[in-house]
Amino acid sequence: MDDKIYGRNPVIEALASGRELDKILIQDGIKHSQISKIVAMAKERKIPFQFVDKHKLSDLVQGENHQGVVAFGAAHAYAEVEDILEKAREKDESPFVVICEGLTDPHNLGSIIRSACAAGAHGVIIPKNRSVSLSATVSKVSAGAIEYVPVARVSNIAQTIEKLKKEGLWIVGTDLSATQTHYECDLKGALGIVIGNEGEGISRIVRESCDFLVKIPMIGEIESLNASVSAGILLYEALRQRLGK
Amino acid sequence: MDDKIYGRNPVIEALASGRELDKILIQDGIKHSQISKIVAMAKERKIPFQFVDKHKLSDLVQGENHQGVVAFGAAHAYAEVEDILEKAREKDESPFVVICEGLTDPHNLGSIIRSACAAGAHGVIIPKNRSVSLSATVSKVSAGAIEYVPVARVSNIAQTIEKLKKEGLWIVGTDLSATQTHYECDLKGALGIVIGNEGEGISRIVRESCDFLVKIPMIGEIESLNASVSAGILLYEALRQRLGK
Repeated sequence: MDDKIYGRNPVIEALASGRELDKILIQDGIKHSQISKIVAMAKERKIPFQFVDKHKLSDLVQGENHQGVVAFGAAHAYAEVEDILEKAREKDESPFVVICEGLTDPHNLGSIIRSACAAGAHGVIIPKNRSVSLSATVSKVSAGAIEYVPVARVSNIAQTIEKLKKEGLWIVGTDLSATQTHYECDLKGALGIVIGNEGEGISRIVRESCDFLVKIPMIGEIESLNASVSAGILLYEALRQRLGK
Repeated sequence: MDDKIYGRNPVIEALASGRELDKILIQDGIKHSQISKIVAMAKERKIPFQFVDKHKLSDLVQGENHQGVVAFGAAHAYAEVEDILEKAREKDESPFVVICEGLTDPHNLGSIIRSACAAGAHGVIIPKNRSVSLSATVSKVSAGAIEYVPVARVSNIAQTIEKLKKEGLWIVGTDLSATQTHYECDLKGALGIVIGNEGEGISRIVRESCDFLVKIPMIGEIESLNASVSAGILLYEALRQRLGK
């Protein structure tokens, strides 16, 4: 169950307090000065909001009086990209991060956070829009790893990649048409692994900003892997190379 | 949505036809000659059955008249272990199989079937009891791979492992206390990879029947991985060695 806040005053208070909110759902067609205030505050704080049918809101709060607005609190606080890089510096290690472009399934994000932790990555980066956020499901599926792996939420993945490249990271993405397999690519140094959306993979703009494209070889009839499995395979190939195995 | 058959005559017909059934739920305390017949036929065909509350059955069929019995058809037919070995022989390859000891999450089994297909494994083996079966969810999560990867369902995993060893397969399981990592273990020849239950891992009896125990190194704060991610990591380390990378 996600942490929901509903009713106009409670949502305004949550917005004013600076509390982390994942998104706000507002009743379609509603007119009220406090709702206008909520929209303005959400824009100001860059929190995604969406207009939905009244019945959807009622279902969400199981018939409680929502007054036309329901906000979702994040199950865990977000970090900044700088915190992730700092974690690597503290450990005197080359930065090792996972960049998830637009995952839609909370099980995938939770599982990736868990694998990132196990493989010794320093953090995970997700976009603010068109992506799952740190919901209660993600937290549960991470099996506790969310407490140790900082997750940063950024407005623009391609710009963040450019910033990471300036920090010395090599960015690797997967593409079925790549000529090099992930086994052959040097994954030892400062590294960012990009994982694309479950259905569409990595977007063109993000693919073009990668330093390397690799393919995970698929020799069976089906040329696809679950997003969190791909991430695990790449993280553990990187770890193999880092351990010199 | 699983494929449900309900009502006494329809379930008897399904049992008589030899159709693949995953399990049968029977109303607690019900007395009826046809129910006794269903129990006898289920025992005869070794189909798991279970006594449950009347309301559970009503919920399952959304208020339709179930007459005290609901059966679940398999979303896909099961293969035999021999079919999996035959598939390897046909391709003139060393057998390469995944043995899932007791998965409870259909997403994990579906994802493992998908990874097994991509990595070129010849089949997946699951137990008849205390395991997810080939439900509609497993089929969906496999992203089509269920059409290509034979899945065999066996009564006793430890006995099946002994049989596979006689066929020349080396059986490898994971154990956090193992001294050798999966990177160092020879995974090139005829191979069975054992994946344990999500919560408890591999049972003692199955662990003792493995030829090798390996650990997937975990260098972060959380020493665990999702079951389908572990399977993907092991399958792709085996593929790396097979490709000579």
